[in-house]
Amino acid sequence: MTEVNQQADYDDNNIFAKMLNGDIPYHKVYEDDKTLAFMDIMPQAEGHVLVIPKQKAVDLADLQPDYAAAILMTSKKVMQAQRQVFEREGVIQMQLNGSQAGQTVFHYHVHLIPSSIHELGRHAVTQADHEKLAEIAKQLAAVIAAQ
Amino acid sequence: MTEVNQQADYDDNNIFAKMLNGDIPYHKVYEDDKTLAFMDIMPQAEGHVLVIPKQKAVDLADLQPDYAAAILMTSKKVMQAQRQVFEREGVIQMQLNGSQAGQTVFHYHVHLIPSSIHELGRHAVTQADHEKLAEIAKQLAAVIAAQ
Repeated sequence: MTEVNQQADYDDNNIFAKMLNGDIPYHKVYEDDKTLAFMDIMPQAEGHVLVIPKQKAVDLADLQPDYAAAILMTSKKVMQAQRQVFEREGVIQMQLNGSQAGQTVFHYHVHLIPSSIHELGRHAVTQADHEKLAEIAKQLAAVIAAQ
Repeated sequence: MTEVNQQADYDDNNIFAKMLNGDIPYHKVYEDDKTLAFMDIMPQAEGHVLVIPKQKAVDLADLQPDYAAAILMTSKKVMQAQRQVFEREGVIQMQLNGSQAGQTVFHYHVHLIPSSIHELGRHAVTQADHEKLAEIAKQLAAVIAAQ
């Protein structure tokens, strides 16, 4: 991860930092030099993906411009794959800033949820089946690779 | 607005296109060469701001990389101003893709809502008092100008 502009309140032991360091496994959907996309293990809808920067950013206040562009371009790839795999147009993009907003992991992350704002499930409550997550990750990754 | 990469399904008469063309008024918070930020007139919480690109993009699928970076950098400025003006840490950043997700205006727009995902009001139902919106816009704009 890029060490520049590290925030004083960034915790190097947060779960996404550990994933980026290869210390814990995840269901990868896409990766490039600035971003990583993977399945949310507590999805608010089937196909819920998270996109994170390879920069030590707690929230939007810390995000650097080149990572900002990369985050939305990776989100675009993921959303287009979700639309194709789940055969639906509607995808919510959401990013929570601060525990007061509902942020639970303090490494900046964008949610991409094939759902509607009117029927969005509660944030981070139920863990999904990992075999199912692995299968969805594989489908999305294949579509992105073919884009 | 930039004419490049115009999508076949972009409607030049959508309300945000009219605002960008100066045809209808709005409560401006911030503007630069690539983005415009203004008060949502049907806020889901006090201080709800929208950020749009000066590019004809229906949703995330259409957004160009330079506008993507500009959108998140303007969102950062707005969020920091919201935190200062409303003296709260929690700000939701949300962007709906497709009517099936709840998108109601078909020009890409990012919501910045000083709220929590657990208490978010229903999307686009009640119109706010315009004098109050004008006052909030003025406060946010002043904080951004001082950043």
